[in-house]
Amino acid sequence: MSKNLTPRSQDYSKWYNELVIRADLAENSAVRGCMVIKPYGFAIWEKMQAELDRMFKETGHQNAYFPLFIPKSLFEAEEKNAEGFAKECAVVTHYRLENDPDNEGKLRVDPTARLEEELVVRPTSEAIIWNTYKGWIQSYRDLPILVNQWANVVRWEMRTRLFLRTTEFLWQEGHTAHATRDEAMAEAELMNNVYAQFAEGFMAIPVIRGIKTESERFAGAEETFCIEALMQDGKALQAGTSHFLGQNFAKAFDVKFTNKEGKLDYVWATSWGVSTRLMGALIMTHGDDKGLVLPPNLAPNQVVIVPIYRSEEQLNQIDLVAEKLMTLLRAAGHSVKYDNRDTYRPGAKFAQYELQGVPLRIAIGPKDLENGTVEVARRDELSKQIIAIDSVVETVSMLLDEIQKNLYERALNFRDDHITEVDDFDTFKSVLEEKTGFISAHWDGTAETEEKIKELTKATIRCIPIDEEAKPGSCVYTGNPSERRVLFAKAY
Amino acid sequence: MSKNLTPRSQDYSKWYNELVIRADLAENSAVRGCMVIKPYGFAIWEKMQAELDRMFKETGHQNAYFPLFIPKSLFEAEEKNAEGFAKECAVVTHYRLENDPDNEGKLRVDPTARLEEELVVRPTSEAIIWNTYKGWIQSYRDLPILVNQWANVVRWEMRTRLFLRTTEFLWQEGHTAHATRDEAMAEAELMNNVYAQFAEGFMAIPVIRGIKTESERFAGAEETFCIEALMQDGKALQAGTSHFLGQNFAKAFDVKFTNKEGKLDYVWATSWGVSTRLMGALIMTHGDDKGLVLPPNLAPNQVVIVPIYRSEEQLNQIDLVAEKLMTLLRAAGHSVKYDNRDTYRPGAKFAQYELQGVPLRIAIGPKDLENGTVEVARRDELSKQIIAIDSVVETVSMLLDEIQKNLYERALNFRDDHITEVDDFDTFKSVLEEKTGFISAHWDGTAETEEKIKELTKATIRCIPIDEEAKPGSCVYTGNPSERRVLFAKAY
Repeated sequence: MSKNLTPRSQDYSKWYNELVIRADLAENSAVRGCMVIKPYGFAIWEKMQAELDRMFKETGHQNAYFPLFIPKSLFEAEEKNAEGFAKECAVVTHYRLENDPDNEGKLRVDPTARLEEELVVRPTSEAIIWNTYKGWIQSYRDLPILVNQWANVVRWEMRTRLFLRTTEFLWQEGHTAHATRDEAMAEAELMNNVYAQFAEGFMAIPVIRGIKTESERFAGAEETFCIEALMQDGKALQAGTSHFLGQNFAKAFDVKFTNKEGKLDYVWATSWGVSTRLMGALIMTHGDDKGLVLPPNLAPNQVVIVPIYRSEEQLNQIDLVAEKLMTLLRAAGHSVKYDNRDTYRPGAKFAQYELQGVPLRIAIGPKDLENGTVEVARRDELSKQIIAIDSVVETVSMLLDEIQKNLYERALNFRDDHITEVDDFDTFKSVLEEKTGFISAHWDGTAETEEKIKELTKATIRCIPIDEEAKPGSCVYTGNPSERRVLFAKAY
Repeated sequence: MSKNLTPRSQDYSKWYNELVIRADLAENSAVRGCMVIKPYGFAIWEKMQAELDRMFKETGHQNAYFPLFIPKSLFEAEEKNAEGFAKECAVVTHYRLENDPDNEGKLRVDPTARLEEELVVRPTSEAIIWNTYKGWIQSYRDLPILVNQWANVVRWEMRTRLFLRTTEFLWQEGHTAHATRDEAMAEAELMNNVYAQFAEGFMAIPVIRGIKTESERFAGAEETFCIEALMQDGKALQAGTSHFLGQNFAKAFDVKFTNKEGKLDYVWATSWGVSTRLMGALIMTHGDDKGLVLPPNLAPNQVVIVPIYRSEEQLNQIDLVAEKLMTLLRAAGHSVKYDNRDTYRPGAKFAQYELQGVPLRIAIGPKDLENGTVEVARRDELSKQIIAIDSVVETVSMLLDEIQKNLYERALNFRDDHITEVDDFDTFKSVLEEKTGFISAHWDGTAETEEKIKELTKATIRCIPIDEEAKPGSCVYTGNPSERRVLFAKAY
């Protein structure tokens, strides 16, 4: 039925695009750069949302909702933030359409319905939220405010790719307010750790926790924490960021509070977010030439059962067995689908579930009925085994755990194999081009050197790793003194 | 601390507005007509979302996500729908801001970044979704498509009120595609029934299921099913609608499929939605002069425990008891909050939880410690009782059930008392003004009469009830023959 995907080794980018479409995850829409997230893709995103939401609530956060639109005068209040996003803002200027007198049946913008003040479609919500927090905060008793929002945002990107960079995307954005610098800094770091734990423990994606250099920071932040993942083509992907915003937004929106000593002070802020971009990270971390490979935690169906039959009588017998298995597997907490459509052959179904990354496939045929067995196939290793039907639940539970761990280990090995310590610039360039991955190298700490290296190699400093001890050395490019190694890579 | 709400009898509208703000549900934002949904209000909305989402999935629907923006040329394709929404569309015309050369530090719309085609911010998504379905549907095997989307939409309303009518609101919109008229009609009615079940069973809001007259139909629909609720001021509120769209959108977007007989036909459509407006229905159905009254199903905290103490020693003792109770109540599946803040007195806490509608309040004082008792207060009836501490879990479980039922019964009695059969127009007018509520009256079936009655009385036909037998009579206004009674009311 469907022809194979372009192999990753041949054209990684093409492989990705084909996979997203053919596995029914998302597609381009009629709106430039905006995607449609299809039911299968959205079901995976819902799994991510549910787990993140749980983690946010466990760490004391509540959800709220703020307007989609930001009046221009608020948007421009925090200058660095505004400057960082101004060039990619969708702007609402009118609030009415009218019949086009020159084109029967067509509409045009009603020129008399021009807004007095233009509205920016939120690219991020600090401005509207801090303008709101002003009304919520008078005293230290009102702090901290620990709020998260699940929302759509719009950034007018010139080059878009499904999930990785789209004009509209879905995300969550946490916005917290604190009485002290230390507390805000601790919150920013805590949420970066939550992201790391989510990526590794839930998505099976190993990440490096780090701090961004000044030039890579979020516009308006004083410190940006991040988690960086490595894709199979050796390019890095920023999977989440958490910002310590200092008092920048409090100053821009005049948000002061009376502290315990009775003195007025500006409030300290953080913001942090992850987005549907994580879908891209998922695909590119675990996918193979057959398609998507889902960690069991993220699989809408962890198990799919496919009947193999020649006659209706055989199918009826298999139906009975499958129903029983489904009940048992569901009782054990696993999601299962039984695909007994008679409009597709088993081979086509196998191909579909491989493409869609279902962790375990159980096939039941007439011989299995005779022998009291089923065939279980693992998506991660494309291996099969025949097992006794009585051991299905136990085996499935064990295999799902194993797959979750295996995917993480595999990705971790790949990632660790692709962190290369480099001490001279020629090696830097050749490793970047040939071996690819992260390059751990000394950097003199200047934006000039960072920019120069980027210009020459397209590699950026992905982060200054938090979990690695700082040892001094000499900059890989200038030879000037360096406090510590940082991680360079080409990135998505 | 806080002064009382304006009584409902004095000014219902003012009572509503005060309650929404003071119970921390929502507030107006800096953007005209757009609200901020505060954490407490959002937590209630999340309960609604979770239950609806569960019901949608149980009836075979999947979630997906479609773009926020609709190109004007797609928006205008289904003419009736376009006409219905054209006057309230926010329109994106530009995609970039630039520094304002005349105003240092300010931004302005970059005139060179004008979109070739304007983008409408979705007021509803039929257009973008049917344009997408075109690519998904070739044959009857691709049908039905049963998709729902949770999203924000924008309708530029001139007069807005928190939750009831806001420029931006949150909702879910189901969009389904079917091979036959009957199947689509059945789906539209099924989802209206799901809404009725949700409103009554979960929100404790009695509703009347009905069909809209042609003039009250959704723009582009061939039939609109609805559920209508009655607020305490005797005005009706449309709580949900489900539309049979016929082949209108399929024709507008050229969505055809090959049916089982191998012939090409247009696809049949439905759409259905409920929104954050349900928050308004909740408030106005159950609220009283002390504030919000939450059905236990919707309460973020079903029980709040408040310690009454004079000394720190007493508080410590109460803390121990409260912790134990919380563990037991949580194990029994109830959400509980223990409020031992020392910055507020018990009286202030009592007032806050009354205002916020927490179903049960448990107070524990030194005497209770001595006697092995606690005081339990019901929010719905503002009644109190002293019970043995050993019976707390049992009592709470029983009372929560009772409150959920009581609220429904109370609202049902009020609603049923406010449906008046009327057979002449003078009585129609006086009942509408004095008794208020629904008026069950004969109508001759013409849009002219409907319009005339609306003009004279501000009452509209809320619906043609589904659950009532049709008996012929004479129109309350014209005296012309009528097939059946319909329900009139003033409405939100």
